[in-house]
Amino acid sequence: MRILHTSDWHLGRLFHQISLVDEQRCAIEQVLDYIKNYQPDVVIIAGDIYDRSVPPASAISLFDDFVDTCLSQLGVPIIAISGNHDGAERLGFASRQLATSGMYLVTTLEQMTQPIVLDDEHGPVDFWAVPFHDPAQVTDFTGEPQRDYNHAHETLVNALKKANDRRSVLVSHCYLDGANESDSERPLSMGGADRVDWQLFSDFDYTALGHLHQPQYKGRENIRYSGSLLKYSFSEQHQRKSLTLVDMDADGNCSIQLLPIQPRNDLRVLKGTLEEILSKAKEDARSNDYVQVILTDDEALLNPMARVREHYPNVMELKKERFQVRQGEQLAAAGEQLKRSELDIFEDFFSQVHHQQLNDEQRQQLEAVLAQIADQERQS
Amino acid sequence: MRILHTSDWHLGRLFHQISLVDEQRCAIEQVLDYIKNYQPDVVIIAGDIYDRSVPPASAISLFDDFVDTCLSQLGVPIIAISGNHDGAERLGFASRQLATSGMYLVTTLEQMTQPIVLDDEHGPVDFWAVPFHDPAQVTDFTGEPQRDYNHAHETLVNALKKANDRRSVLVSHCYLDGANESDSERPLSMGGADRVDWQLFSDFDYTALGHLHQPQYKGRENIRYSGSLLKYSFSEQHQRKSLTLVDMDADGNCSIQLLPIQPRNDLRVLKGTLEEILSKAKEDARSNDYVQVILTDDEALLNPMARVREHYPNVMELKKERFQVRQGEQLAAAGEQLKRSELDIFEDFFSQVHHQQLNDEQRQQLEAVLAQIADQERQS
Repeated sequence: MRILHTSDWHLGRLFHQISLVDEQRCAIEQVLDYIKNYQPDVVIIAGDIYDRSVPPASAISLFDDFVDTCLSQLGVPIIAISGNHDGAERLGFASRQLATSGMYLVTTLEQMTQPIVLDDEHGPVDFWAVPFHDPAQVTDFTGEPQRDYNHAHETLVNALKKANDRRSVLVSHCYLDGANESDSERPLSMGGADRVDWQLFSDFDYTALGHLHQPQYKGRENIRYSGSLLKYSFSEQHQRKSLTLVDMDADGNCSIQLLPIQPRNDLRVLKGTLEEILSKAKEDARSNDYVQVILTDDEALLNPMARVREHYPNVMELKKERFQVRQGEQLAAAGEQLKRSELDIFEDFFSQVHHQQLNDEQRQQLEAVLAQIADQERQS
Repeated sequence: MRILHTSDWHLGRLFHQISLVDEQRCAIEQVLDYIKNYQPDVVIIAGDIYDRSVPPASAISLFDDFVDTCLSQLGVPIIAISGNHDGAERLGFASRQLATSGMYLVTTLEQMTQPIVLDDEHGPVDFWAVPFHDPAQVTDFTGEPQRDYNHAHETLVNALKKANDRRSVLVSHCYLDGANESDSERPLSMGGADRVDWQLFSDFDYTALGHLHQPQYKGRENIRYSGSLLKYSFSEQHQRKSLTLVDMDADGNCSIQLLPIQPRNDLRVLKGTLEEILSKAKEDARSNDYVQVILTDDEALLNPMARVREHYPNVMELKKERFQVRQGEQLAAAGEQLKRSELDIFEDFFSQVHHQQLNDEQRQQLEAVLAQIADQERQS
């Protein structure tokens, strides 16, 4: 049984107010190419297909095209669950009819109680697909109060009528305790009550997880997050996004391969002085990447955003490292810094505009003006 | 070929801020009962399934349950088009897959160009389903500028590769010129540019229309509006909502039957004096109906809404007929009326509270107070 495992597509996501739908289309084309080339028996999407419960129509069209190509042209069934970002009821429309076309959309706990059974040459494999749920929903569903996400997940996993003589796959959207998070995931609850133990999944031959955006496994190599389709925060700059290709043998043993996704435009963090960044930019072939710039300059700079944007039209954010460091210092010390820097800032500005330093007379006049302003502020 | 034709369900509609989803569920149960009893070969929904492009999740669940029961339990296929209220892209998700289950959702002009072919004992019938479109969309689709709705509709109908030796049905969501409108339809455009000639549909054996909420035919008996699922404005109080059952013979001749829908709570207009309405209310078994009250009282009344609501919890609107008439009169005359009525209004109020008329002394004091107020207003 060959499984292509992916998750967290977040179709329709905005990144710093910019639609990523073209980036997402490019990534999905790669997914389809991999499906064509590797011919998996099934594609699993472990939740967060959309970025929000009412996604933009363009995101729906994009997913519609993927589904049609995958099912009708490539003949590969899809098992998908709703994640914490999806609107389960909206996503689940006509899911009972779609199952007959090989589109298994599992968005309710009722649907979860029956496995989706797919066969390979060694016999059947049970796919148990658990849509995202919070403890309150599981309390409603089971009639038993659930303390937290771990308890709720345990209750659900125990309720699955798992046949021990059959190979089985679990699909879930949850936060495994101890796994690595990124900045682009939305917390499920505060204070760690959302964490689930990986040991709950020990009995499955493969566990296809969604929610965390970094590809990783936890506890065992067959309990895995595929990671998101794309980088959705600068904290993910060094992650390599991929699909997880799983080959399961007759005994349920899995061999795993990561299939990289090449972003059309990458997410990168550029760090250095403004001049360093601008001089390197000239040889940077990937100027359309989405960049966060961290400036290490000590002096104030004249309109650095506009100067960076000349080379990097998709600059999303610009930070000054020195200012960041100061944020962490004591308030009093910061006050001293700020007081000292009024004159400094003007001197930096002046030298950048006129390419020369203030002379003594100018400095005295400036000091007089600043003193006068300070005086007026005290009196008012 | 037996066709059950319906349209304009407007699932998720709010009526005076109240959700109608329970009323709609009750009506849909009757639709399913009719399907069970009359066993049509197909159900047609001629647009405006939902009331808005992003319907509430409860409306989606309601339609999902209808689709599942109709297709999976009753085995009857559905042909549905998007109307001007539907979000075509949202509604059309996975329509290519759903067609294999007998759910023919036609939401794009591309899909329209191929007929849906269903067979009966006499052979095939072509169903041409035209989703709602405006002239600009048809201009985009055909590359030819379209003057208005009639022109656009003509262009589309002419483009259908109709086989003259086969029976055919057209499904459309449009406004036939000369047909009767209700207050609950949303105009497609201003100034009559939305009107379409019924003659465009002469060549089809049956035309199943949506948009207008009153069941009716136009031009010929086989060019019909089924009308909406429920009354959605008080202007529809005397309409009888129904489904249209069409029996088409081997030659395409249609015999037509209207199957009434009984609203759980009806929409009614009650007219009379407050006392008349309240005294009749005691014997009114349908006190949960949604009522609009038109009061014919001449005097001012103390909190009539609350008094009506004691009997009719779903009173939606209360109007005074006298005030309505006055609105039509000349402004000067209305001014005179209002001037005279300050004293009148207080007298009405006094007599209603104290069950007696003002005596002469009280009237003089009141006149003095009113004169004083008027005086102050002039000076200020």
